[in-house]
Amino acid sequence: MGTKGDGNRQRIIDAADSLFYRRGYNQTSFQDISDATGIPRGNFYYYFKTKDEILDAVVNTRVEELTVLLNRCEAETEDGRERLLLFSNILDFNRDDVIESGCPIGSLSSELAKDDPALHEKSRQVFVLLHNWIKQQFEATGIINADDLAMDLLAKLQGVTVIACAFKDVDYIKRSHLEIKKWINEKILN
Amino acid sequence: MGTKGDGNRQRIIDAADSLFYRRGYNQTSFQDISDATGIPRGNFYYYFKTKDEILDAVVNTRVEELTVLLNRCEAETEDGRERLLLFSNILDFNRDDVIESGCPIGSLSSELAKDDPALHEKSRQVFVLLHNWIKQQFEATGIINADDLAMDLLAKLQGVTVIACAFKDVDYIKRSHLEIKKWINEKILN
Repeated sequence: MGTKGDGNRQRIIDAADSLFYRRGYNQTSFQDISDATGIPRGNFYYYFKTKDEILDAVVNTRVEELTVLLNRCEAETEDGRERLLLFSNILDFNRDDVIESGCPIGSLSSELAKDDPALHEKSRQVFVLLHNWIKQQFEATGIINADDLAMDLLAKLQGVTVIACAFKDVDYIKRSHLEIKKWINEKILN
Repeated sequence: MGTKGDGNRQRIIDAADSLFYRRGYNQTSFQDISDATGIPRGNFYYYFKTKDEILDAVVNTRVEELTVLLNRCEAETEDGRERLLLFSNILDFNRDDVIESGCPIGSLSSELAKDDPALHEKSRQVFVLLHNWIKQQFEATGIINADDLAMDLLAKLQGVTVIACAFKDVDYIKRSHLEIKKWINEKILN
């Protein structure tokens, strides 16, 4: 059963998740998270001693949320190609957010590459989860270079979000999504 | 003839350029630039009143440097396809820097997307220069969808740098560079 403490902890994580995405990790202060949640700074030191600990919790939450999304793709179909096509719809969810703030995973990783290696390593976990899952789906189709193709699909998704966000071009996401679907089909069906 | 003032101004820009790349724009303070140049903070307010003004000068410098690189590609050959292949070598210059800190253009744009729209707009100038130049080269080959292909080439380059940096995978840059060359050839020769 959830307690008030659990509720506060989750509110801090959710607010931090959103702020790290909208403003960046380094641009988010304890005070910003306090303002967003209404929980006094003094109180939430009880849950998190440092911003690194909040980052840890945010990354864990993102991993959990992506796992739910990937499980949903798995529940939908047993076919690796169809699962990958479903997964590629991630480009269409939150399209407006991507135009505004880029990819939450990619932009956090790019930001933290310039910080402490331990923070960057932490942020990489979300990419590792995605890479492993994509690789498994390619492998399930009997394809031999599943590892390379998983890297390529991640790079395609990142490239589209960086450029669409830079040029504020929502049509570029739509067109690229179709081309990524075509690419998945070609790689597996040819 | 250069004066001491010009020299100091350029030293500030060069140090800021490097710090914005290595640490990020928001993580770089006036004090950091002062430490890197040895020019006292008080003195360099004479050259730049705000960090935004330094960003402006850094973006202008990056535009100038890229223009030199693009002019070199143009001097080398009159063939659009060959120019694009030469340009793609940008992935191989500073490969170690890309692994460490990502793409200077893409990571600045991603960071500033989360800031003031005017700063983001400013950082976009480097992408606009590249987009226009790439588009011109595709057009010179008589291809019809030069604009789309220019976006796609930029997205490919960004995708590779984000993923190579996230996974610290230098081989991924090498392999992707070959695939990008193949893609350029296929688009133009087929």
